[in-house]
Amino acid sequence: MDLRLDPLPPATSNPARQYGRPEHPGLRADLYRIIFESDTRAGRLFDLVLIALILVSVTVVVLDSVQALSVRHGEIFDVLEWSFTLIFTVEYLLRLYCVRRPLAYATSFFGIIDFLSVVPTYLAMLMPGAHLLLDVRILRLLRIFRILKLTSYVDEYRMLGRALVAARRKILIFLSVVFMVVLLLATVMYAVEGPANGFTSIPTALYWAITAVTTVGFGDIVPKTDLGRAISSVTMLLGWGILAVPTGIISSEIAAQRSLPSADRRCAACGSDGHAPDARYCKDCGARLEAAAEE
Amino acid sequence: MDLRLDPLPPATSNPARQYGRPEHPGLRADLYRIIFESDTRAGRLFDLVLIALILVSVTVVVLDSVQALSVRHGEIFDVLEWSFTLIFTVEYLLRLYCVRRPLAYATSFFGIIDFLSVVPTYLAMLMPGAHLLLDVRILRLLRIFRILKLTSYVDEYRMLGRALVAARRKILIFLSVVFMVVLLLATVMYAVEGPANGFTSIPTALYWAITAVTTVGFGDIVPKTDLGRAISSVTMLLGWGILAVPTGIISSEIAAQRSLPSADRRCAACGSDGHAPDARYCKDCGARLEAAAEE
Amino acid sequence: MDLRLDPLPPATSNPARQYGRPEHPGLRADLYRIIFESDTRAGRLFDLVLIALILVSVTVVVLDSVQALSVRHGEIFDVLEWSFTLIFTVEYLLRLYCVRRPLAYATSFFGIIDFLSVVPTYLAMLMPGAHLLLDVRILRLLRIFRILKLTSYVDEYRMLGRALVAARRKILIFLSVVFMVVLLLATVMYAVEGPANGFTSIPTALYWAITAVTTVGFGDIVPKTDLGRAISSVTMLLGWGILAVPTGIISSEIAAQRSLPSADRRCAACGSDGHAPDARYCKDCGARLEAAAEE
Amino acid sequence: MDLRLDPLPPATSNPARQYGRPEHPGLRADLYRIIFESDTRAGRLFDLVLIALILVSVTVVVLDSVQALSVRHGEIFDVLEWSFTLIFTVEYLLRLYCVRRPLAYATSFFGIIDFLSVVPTYLAMLMPGAHLLLDVRILRLLRIFRILKLTSYVDEYRMLGRALVAARRKILIFLSVVFMVVLLLATVMYAVEGPANGFTSIPTALYWAITAVTTVGFGDIVPKTDLGRAISSVTMLLGWGILAVPTGIISSEIAAQRSLPSADRRCAACGSDGHAPDARYCKDCGARLEAAAEE
Repeated sequence: MDLRLDPLPPATSNPARQYGRPEHPGLRADLYRIIFESDTRAGRLFDLVLIALILVSVTVVVLDSVQALSVRHGEIFDVLEWSFTLIFTVEYLLRLYCVRRPLAYATSFFGIIDFLSVVPTYLAMLMPGAHLLLDVRILRLLRIFRILKLTSYVDEYRMLGRALVAARRKILIFLSVVFMVVLLLATVMYAVEGPANGFTSIPTALYWAITAVTTVGFGDIVPKTDLGRAISSVTMLLGWGILAVPTGIISSEIAAQRSLPSADRRCAACGSDGHAPDARYCKDCGARLEAAAEE
Repeated sequence: MDLRLDPLPPATSNPARQYGRPEHPGLRADLYRIIFESDTRAGRLFDLVLIALILVSVTVVVLDSVQALSVRHGEIFDVLEWSFTLIFTVEYLLRLYCVRRPLAYATSFFGIIDFLSVVPTYLAMLMPGAHLLLDVRILRLLRIFRILKLTSYVDEYRMLGRALVAARRKILIFLSVVFMVVLLLATVMYAVEGPANGFTSIPTALYWAITAVTTVGFGDIVPKTDLGRAISSVTMLLGWGILAVPTGIISSEIAAQRSLPSADRRCAACGSDGHAPDARYCKDCGARLEAAAEE
Repeated sequence: MDLRLDPLPPATSNPARQYGRPEHPGLRADLYRIIFESDTRAGRLFDLVLIALILVSVTVVVLDSVQALSVRHGEIFDVLEWSFTLIFTVEYLLRLYCVRRPLAYATSFFGIIDFLSVVPTYLAMLMPGAHLLLDVRILRLLRIFRILKLTSYVDEYRMLGRALVAARRKILIFLSVVFMVVLLLATVMYAVEGPANGFTSIPTALYWAITAVTTVGFGDIVPKTDLGRAISSVTMLLGWGILAVPTGIISSEIAAQRSLPSADRRCAACGSDGHAPDARYCKDCGARLEAAAEE
Repeated sequence: MDLRLDPLPPATSNPARQYGRPEHPGLRADLYRIIFESDTRAGRLFDLVLIALILVSVTVVVLDSVQALSVRHGEIFDVLEWSFTLIFTVEYLLRLYCVRRPLAYATSFFGIIDFLSVVPTYLAMLMPGAHLLLDVRILRLLRIFRILKLTSYVDEYRMLGRALVAARRKILIFLSVVFMVVLLLATVMYAVEGPANGFTSIPTALYWAITAVTTVGFGDIVPKTDLGRAISSVTMLLGWGILAVPTGIISSEIAAQRSLPSADRRCAACGSDGHAPDARYCKDCGARLEAAAEE
């Protein structure tokens, strides 16, 4: 079934295929193993240090946005920021140096993220007014996903991904139906309450309807007429109730993913299946089972 | 079991049965295939163009409600709106022309929606004051459901529908119990807090109770007395906790729908289906079943 | 297992056992069949009329609380209210008359509800100040449950009840852990934010913590300090996340209830079980199965 | 699989192993049985009395924080508080006396909680200004968990614990992805709305984003620009939708825990367990299994 197509690259489709691991051993190949892979001691150490640097640098960006801290510790933040930028710049250049196809890397998703992680600091120095640009540095956070893909958590990560992908068509259908209902309700509320009560336009009413359906309920826009309150009661109950649908979809997907592995193991002697994932003997006739297929 | 009765028409119950496909080949039959069906190339193209037109025209309705945009781009919106209205009018007339029983179509659900999609624009021209009427055009959105029923997403759509229908009695019981509890709580809060604290009547208290039970919590009406806060704490915990019930109902329904692959295994002897996935003999007549079809 | 003990009376434990159906045929026995049972045509008609009367009378109570309506239609409401009170009084007296043990009925749960449904109207006439007393009439709503127990919806009703009862210990454990965590968080917030920011006492902080954990978020009390906001972020994530736990508990209970019936049917020929609820032949050897045990 | 490692001590790992039950019979051993164990009549009575004392003393702490009650009943609260403190002090000393390794007990988790339950009252007497310190007494609540571990509810408690532990890696992955997305959205909102609309810093925007994603929606900070409202609509839908993921994870974990009844079926030949419910042969050595125990 085409829905089961795996959207997450299997373990073998590592960066080596995408950007090209250098062909001959040497400094570039060694660097490549350290920077892009994590099956050596140095590679794992590099990953850990990088994660720590990313987290600290993101923390600095966050703290720097607080007026009080920025005024008091601004200079420390600047020094730290420049250190991180220099380290990440060196790392970026090394990545460009050690891959076989630098252009393929530079235009890949993570290549662009790596570039956006360092360039705002330089730009902000050149254009003193572009202060807002500095917030782009928060994208550094996304670099953690690259490392996550290499770690032992990859199984859980891919299992959740598979469940979401398998449920994608059901979720899409569900979301479009929800969106239509919400748009209809928003238009009704716009007509009923009107600009006088804060429902100044259909987009504003849509924003309100989404706060109601998702049960967020900020309360900055609220119905004031009795009819509007009655309609919004229906909207709230609807949103509260239909939350059960995506939950049900994903629950059953995850349960299905969980019970999948045994499906492809069949007893050669009596043909029964449904064996426990770790079974070595057939539960129905006691014959020895084949080893579980490598996933 | 009567609960399993399919509320969604099976694939064979297409519009042909409802409005009547023209009996003899010719222009009407050709138009019918394009407009009402989607198994030809022209039919699919027609559907795609229609969905695009509906989405764009709804977007214009939404944007036109924004004061700032309406003032600045009002004329473009008017031109676009009249174009859509004319196109949809032609489409409506063609639909009337090519079905065998025009009256049956005109009084069907989608016939009325089609009519309501075009008539407000003409009415608003005749009665300049009836501006609110224009919002009725948002009903055009519902026309997308007709096309959705013909597409390949129909399986997921019908599966979700079946799960909801199968769970309908449980959900109805659940909702009526919830409604009674909420009405009792609202009356208690009306008595405890009273008009002085914003609980001006039982309907208003009911609106508040629904914001609390559904965990929306707009905050326009809030308890002020200690007793009222205690009761509303109970209300909130109740609403938060019982959300688990519909989720559980629907999760188990969807899981049950999913484990009905047996629908395509049919006893050759007595024609019954609904066999357990691992059944080897027919549960109704005891005849040997075919092996389960490979999924 | 003692958790499976059925808290809802089985179908045979009808009111006949509790209040006593009159022993000899006659007027009392006929009345009893109509009023307390629903297996005759007159009995079902009585139930339908009673549900309609209850719903209309509750609607009158609700509408009467709206100032504007009460002023304009007060007299109609009064006439309607006295009609309902007289009808319900006659019904109450008939119930007392036709049961074998009137005292047992009068002191039963539904006997008290029936009494509370009529007495406030009389009391409010005697004591003009006791206006609040009239809200007690909303308890009439509970009388619908008695009729619900007799209808065909009783299966779904009891199935949901069984699932909740089976999950009761897990839910109790869960709720007490949640309550302790919430009380600890409330105390911390009371210490951090203090009376100056609206957290005037631990009970008030508890009310706030419940609005946060249940994701209601009225917004009448909000943290103002940075530390308070950090703690409340944790509180919100906690509440949002742990909602998954009761949902999981109840989902798996409902799924278990659903898959129960087949457990007690075992093929006499080959001993296999797990047959479909409506199976007549063994799915593993084709032998005829015993009829399903009456539940 | 290492994820199934039981984080909750099995029934045999009772306090006796941790703090040491006195070796020789006598007063200390008798006290130990009463205070630390609950398999004697006196032990159970002790537990019940202790739970009652803890609950009442916590209630006093809570009520004492209410200004109005504190002023009126302050003296009663003081007397009660000193009584509880003295009782808990005696209990703490008895615990120290009757265990074999008092230091191991005093530095254990519950030893520290026991100490923190009594010491604030003495400290507040010595340092009259340290009023806030009194709130530490709320930690007494945690002492209930110790008793809970000894009661018959321990099965449900441990079952929930096992499900959460088994799901821990999936939940961790999920939470870190959610946190990154929330931080990115918060930064975008900080850039879009800015300090003028209440988004004074990234941490403040993060607090807002968490209220939106968890659907709490206090409403103290709300988007005011159209772009901000559009982004926050996406944020709300995201939070509402992804709530389905942890629910699905935990639902399927609990269902999996439930379907492990096989734990009590053990192969007589090799001692392995975890067989499928309908297994007839051991999955590890192929020996014939006993029939499943009647539940």
